[in-house]
Amino acid sequence: MIVRIAELEIDPGRIASYSALLSEEIEASVRLEPGVLFLFAVAVKGSPNTVRVIEGYADQAAYETHLTTPHFLKYKSQVADMVTSLRLIETDPIALRVKDSIPNE
Amino acid sequence: MIVRIAELEIDPGRIASYSALLSEEIEASVRLEPGVLFLFAVAVKGSPNTVRVIEGYADQAAYETHLTTPHFLKYKSQVADMVTSLRLIETDPIALRVKDSIPNE
Repeated sequence: MIVRIAELEIDPGRIASYSALLSEEIEASVRLEPGVLFLFAVAVKGSPNTVRVIEGYADQAAYETHLTTPHFLKYKSQVADMVTSLRLIETDPIALRVKDSIPNE
Repeated sequence: MIVRIAELEIDPGRIASYSALLSEEIEASVRLEPGVLFLFAVAVKGSPNTVRVIEGYADQAAYETHLTTPHFLKYKSQVADMVTSLRLIETDPIALRVKDSIPNE
């Protein structure tokens, strides 16, 4: 499994629109792509325009496939003028543990 | 579900010891605590002493219980002199999606 972290700053006036598009993209990615294991998008408490997305993929190929999917490309194009800053962080795993079953929200 | 992010800097000379203690604590927490849904610990690629732990709890009570468990308290005491910086980030969820089953590592 590989884990990536995206750190974004969103135009403060566009948070609601951005969140709706991101939620739609996340739902489609986890449902449609076998190699997308989880996507957790959160806003930093007290700083609603600071967003982090924690991304789990089966492997590097699954991540590269994700970047070519229609739902990702649609998201990327629709949010282009809402995202004021984007930092993509690659990681090396130390320990990754998850319950057998956890609820979606 | 609540998601928290811990950002840590580790004494560069103690990374191996720290990673072993963190891995042990994570394994015990997800196995023993019903309210600990996942714990993902990663190092930022190219910066092995920069560690992030993404933490998923069933609710706030599950997080507070976690802080009182023997395995957490043991970890906390054993790593006290290895952690040179710690930032705990609370978050508001935007979208949290996960596959029905994902592998542990």
